[in-house]
Amino acid sequence: MSNNNPIGIFDSGIGGLTVLREISRMLPVENIIYLGDTARVPYGIRSPETVIRYSFECAEFLLRQNIKLLVIACNTASAISLKEIEKRVSIPTIGVIDPGAAAAANATKNKRIGVIGTDATIRSRAYQKSINMIDETIQVFGIPCPMFVPLVEEGWTEGIITKLVAERYLNGFKDKDVDTIVLGCTHYPLLKDVIQEVMEVVKLIDSAVETARVVKELVINKEIMRLSETPPSEKFFVTDSPERFINVGERFLQKKIKNIDKIELYK
Amino acid sequence: MSNNNPIGIFDSGIGGLTVLREISRMLPVENIIYLGDTARVPYGIRSPETVIRYSFECAEFLLRQNIKLLVIACNTASAISLKEIEKRVSIPTIGVIDPGAAAAANATKNKRIGVIGTDATIRSRAYQKSINMIDETIQVFGIPCPMFVPLVEEGWTEGIITKLVAERYLNGFKDKDVDTIVLGCTHYPLLKDVIQEVMEVVKLIDSAVETARVVKELVINKEIMRLSETPPSEKFFVTDSPERFINVGERFLQKKIKNIDKIELYK
Repeated sequence: MSNNNPIGIFDSGIGGLTVLREISRMLPVENIIYLGDTARVPYGIRSPETVIRYSFECAEFLLRQNIKLLVIACNTASAISLKEIEKRVSIPTIGVIDPGAAAAANATKNKRIGVIGTDATIRSRAYQKSINMIDETIQVFGIPCPMFVPLVEEGWTEGIITKLVAERYLNGFKDKDVDTIVLGCTHYPLLKDVIQEVMEVVKLIDSAVETARVVKELVINKEIMRLSETPPSEKFFVTDSPERFINVGERFLQKKIKNIDKIELYK
Repeated sequence: MSNNNPIGIFDSGIGGLTVLREISRMLPVENIIYLGDTARVPYGIRSPETVIRYSFECAEFLLRQNIKLLVIACNTASAISLKEIEKRVSIPTIGVIDPGAAAAANATKNKRIGVIGTDATIRSRAYQKSINMIDETIQVFGIPCPMFVPLVEEGWTEGIITKLVAERYLNGFKDKDVDTIVLGCTHYPLLKDVIQEVMEVVKLIDSAVETARVVKELVINKEIMRLSETPPSEKFFVTDSPERFINVGERFLQKKIKNIDKIELYK
């Protein structure tokens, strides 16, 4: 069996491109549609009600494009709205929290895990709940790092300023003896080197990679792979004008972004 | 003559509270309504079309509250949408650009002015146009400082990280010999000390103070002062839940925020 419909991915903006990149690496023949809600990014500073409302609007748009699988490539949206969206949607839906949580639970030796993310993700305690569903004896410590997203979007992924910001936030883990840290925001893989330098021997879990792995398994197990001899397509939609998305996004994807349109999610 | 209707102020979020603070200092008997579009903040990274759409929605909401005067307390919205809003509105409308530009044109001795602001404000060249309307021989140099807003919202208004970020951005003025810098974003007055330390003898223009001065003149000249023996009221509206607005906003206002409601600008 097969299914040639596209995989749909949405994010509050640009960060989810790290998830798209891993999915197209692991499933290079799939068609992909990506929606970035750039007119309302960032979700990480907003209330749960607003995040749920915005996430529904994104999901509904992608469902109208006949996707076969929905990926919520935004930690904040996954943390807050995945369960609500699953209730309303008949196709398989994958968020970035559970794959990262499972990988972290599997990686930790001393059962002490750190999680970093936006204010909204950390406040939701979504990683903690997901990790403790797997093993309730694991202790999870969360630290919000609101400056990391602006640093990445400014392109300051290395250098003294970024190192000092990372030290300031990650110092909170120093007396917690964590052996594993989840990068609980799709922007953070671009800061992996700095975070590893500050946290030395700690193992870092990249939610984007783990999510792509789960997507691949699901596509295989459900027998919904695309089977076609034509090359796969990538289509991008944004809610604000594409200019800034293209400029910053090409850094995330490390390739050119073409085939992009602006849409409106309301009115 | 007098007019007891409120003054309406809108901003993309919290920053405009620096303008509100100065207006209520200079006009302590006026009723004020403040709208922060916190469900869609920040405007500074968005396209002109989106900024204009959002600004219209904010202005329309305030007009329905029977305001006597409209203040656009957001540099990005003023830079991009003031002229469009003025066309559609019959009450006096004041943005933060022209007052800051006039004060800077008046302050400079060597006719070399620097402007700092969001990406969208600097790209719009609104300060440059406004300053050159007053004196076309003045040279204006703009530098976008996207990390300043997150620094202020995180509460990092001093310390080594903030100083290094300020130096990195403001280095761009070193060979320009500017003697005056406009703080072209309502968040920046909270970084005044750090910016002054880095730029030493340069004179800093605070748009919030200059805008409040123009509002006061206009209220007096148009004879629309509030005359009443009851104490004035302050009413706040936000588009996301009030929690974060109150937490960060009380730092901006240096007093408690009460009387706040969440509204929706669309649907």
